[in-house]
Amino acid sequence: MSVFEKLVKTYDKSLNYDGVDGERLANRIDTLSKIGASPGGGVTRIGFSDEEKEAKAEVITWMKEAGLTVETDGVGNVFARFKGKDDHSSIASGSHVDSVPEGGNFDGPLGVLAALEVVEAWKTEGFIPEKSFEVVIFSDEEGSRFNSGIFGSRSYMGLVDEASQSLLKDNNGRTLEEVLDHYGTSIDEYRSVKKRDWEFFAELHIEQGKVLEKNNQPAGVVSGIAGPAWLEVEFKGVAGHAGNTPMNDRKDALVAAGQFVSEIESLPGTVSETAVTTVGKLEVYPNGANVIPESVKMIVDIRDIFKETRDEVLKLVENKAQNISGQRGIEVSLSTTTKITPVPIAEEYRAEIAGILKEMEIEPLEIPSGAGHDSMIIGSEIPVAMIFARSENGISHNPEEWTTLNDCVTSVHVLKEFIEKQMTK
Amino acid sequence: MSVFEKLVKTYDKSLNYDGVDGERLANRIDTLSKIGASPGGGVTRIGFSDEEKEAKAEVITWMKEAGLTVETDGVGNVFARFKGKDDHSSIASGSHVDSVPEGGNFDGPLGVLAALEVVEAWKTEGFIPEKSFEVVIFSDEEGSRFNSGIFGSRSYMGLVDEASQSLLKDNNGRTLEEVLDHYGTSIDEYRSVKKRDWEFFAELHIEQGKVLEKNNQPAGVVSGIAGPAWLEVEFKGVAGHAGNTPMNDRKDALVAAGQFVSEIESLPGTVSETAVTTVGKLEVYPNGANVIPESVKMIVDIRDIFKETRDEVLKLVENKAQNISGQRGIEVSLSTTTKITPVPIAEEYRAEIAGILKEMEIEPLEIPSGAGHDSMIIGSEIPVAMIFARSENGISHNPEEWTTLNDCVTSVHVLKEFIEKQMTK
Repeated sequence: MSVFEKLVKTYDKSLNYDGVDGERLANRIDTLSKIGASPGGGVTRIGFSDEEKEAKAEVITWMKEAGLTVETDGVGNVFARFKGKDDHSSIASGSHVDSVPEGGNFDGPLGVLAALEVVEAWKTEGFIPEKSFEVVIFSDEEGSRFNSGIFGSRSYMGLVDEASQSLLKDNNGRTLEEVLDHYGTSIDEYRSVKKRDWEFFAELHIEQGKVLEKNNQPAGVVSGIAGPAWLEVEFKGVAGHAGNTPMNDRKDALVAAGQFVSEIESLPGTVSETAVTTVGKLEVYPNGANVIPESVKMIVDIRDIFKETRDEVLKLVENKAQNISGQRGIEVSLSTTTKITPVPIAEEYRAEIAGILKEMEIEPLEIPSGAGHDSMIIGSEIPVAMIFARSENGISHNPEEWTTLNDCVTSVHVLKEFIEKQMTK
Repeated sequence: MSVFEKLVKTYDKSLNYDGVDGERLANRIDTLSKIGASPGGGVTRIGFSDEEKEAKAEVITWMKEAGLTVETDGVGNVFARFKGKDDHSSIASGSHVDSVPEGGNFDGPLGVLAALEVVEAWKTEGFIPEKSFEVVIFSDEEGSRFNSGIFGSRSYMGLVDEASQSLLKDNNGRTLEEVLDHYGTSIDEYRSVKKRDWEFFAELHIEQGKVLEKNNQPAGVVSGIAGPAWLEVEFKGVAGHAGNTPMNDRKDALVAAGQFVSEIESLPGTVSETAVTTVGKLEVYPNGANVIPESVKMIVDIRDIFKETRDEVLKLVENKAQNISGQRGIEVSLSTTTKITPVPIAEEYRAEIAGILKEMEIEPLEIPSGAGHDSMIIGSEIPVAMIFARSENGISHNPEEWTTLNDCVTSVHVLKEFIEKQMTK
């Protein structure tokens, strides 16, 4: 069964109102699903790949058919403008069309196609907004190209440090300059990337979690975008033979690391309801079954939607590592490699989205976004808001990623009404 | 400075008595140190390599010069016989000359050269023992060839299951048959390996631990050889996005594994003074910094010199894994992949070695051997005993591995007197 057939099979056609067309949206999701299609039913569309470029070209065709004026900047970001009654400033919405390797069909594309569907609906209704509206595709949001996330929007905001970036190479050993040349732009065009005249940015995205599913709601309000702090922790003990070193004469780095990983689990809850800590990556050295581990390196990912509480949890985690190091006489080194400022979303916008949801008889759940999004970057300078659509089983970054067409279209209606509200401010 | 120069620099020549010659031993250690020499000062002599074969050939030359009758079996084990007054049975002593990659100069060679030095001393003294004596070199003790340890002695004892072995390939993709062909023997000769007429086997080996060094003694009595049990443990939780999964909705396999690793540390001490547990190898899947670990696999190495207590610790470790699994709702699977029976050393032999040490004004420390040795395999059918020589800093399997010539020669004297005692039984 094609993605289109699977989407429309359970579609409730009564959601086709106010100019929004579920079948059109399903067709477009289906078309993109074929670009970089992977065997498991998902897609592989790495940032700056031929596949990402082809997906953008396809969307640009639809943008032009809808009468939008399309511009592309030096990092490949796409801006499609629908002129409002007053063209002196604009409101923007969008997301990205790149994916992680073996990713899914909704993380990114839904946000782009939803913004375009808002324009299509306005056209059908003959509606001209007060201000201009831009549908946006950011390049390389997943950061799979240089293992350096949210690349297109960071470049757009001038937040990429070219000196650090020049040290990075992609999997083919290419620098940014070489990648841009291959993609069809250039380092000079990259350096000339400029910000647009946006007053406000809104993004619809799949939740990538299970809160909406567990509460049986199709869409929800994003309460804030958590900025991650990454703490690199290395415990360093003394290697030894597993058989010939008595238990009381060991400095086992993995026992210290194990205690640390299990004990930090309770820390976020002491500070904030929305804070989380995760040790996802951990490496043991030398990692031989009969050798007492000499060292263990790991990354602790610490997130919250408020900077103060995120930093408070970070401090508690650092203290825990120091305490275990002291107790066990095992060295520890700590280094914070990433520290992205969380983006809270203003009460005004959250209340507006909640109001729209209530009118649609949807319980207005507030969900923190633990993942970073283009909105997080844009939100460092202008106001942003986000809407989440329900993810099946909370799965993302996987061919199994799925959001029903009913939930997609419901979310488009929420986005459309919300943007219309911003137009009259 | 050569190994010879380093050895003799601090040598106390008063240890040259009863026919034992420290400089000869130092010369031989030095000669072997040049075969497969690695940049760091150690050696790489993998089992069945050209280097192991060359080291054996060198020792065989010395054996023949000493008038021994040398035989080699189908797995490359070397037996050099010194005829006693009665040649109807024999006592044997030896070890191995292979090493781990980038190993040291004493783990193995000391045991072989010490047994040969006993013969050299007897020759100097004109001593003919009551029974025959065999100096032995076992092949591939470290098991680096097929990642399958104590291979030569297991083959000698008929303990290698050829069906399982035939599934293993070395790093060059060669099967046992191909390795044997390359080495200069054959699978038919391998199958015809037969046991010798040994009544008893003694082995001198470096301690590979720090007990002798901490107690300032050159040599000690091995109380027993710990047989390892290897328990493979896999915790299986649910992967999820590090940002989008609330703390109270996680099944984090690494948090469970961390708790397990830190909590099993206290278990051996509740059962036995000599028991140890180690998690040396641990792998996280998928091991991405922003992904909640889905599964963690590890090997728990559990050792004691008594089967009963070793198995009791194993049971406690299994229970701990089950309890954590139950508490956290995380699946666990347990599988015991290796279970070697520990070899206790009879009181009679331990007392004899202790007596010899006391006469030499050495405190007779009893030390469990946590590592496996050829003696462990031979000890499954005939009585065995072991003497440990002090290791500097407890280091082994490393170019830094070192035992002073004083400690080597002192241990040779202990071995010589001990074997002489067995001759008159």
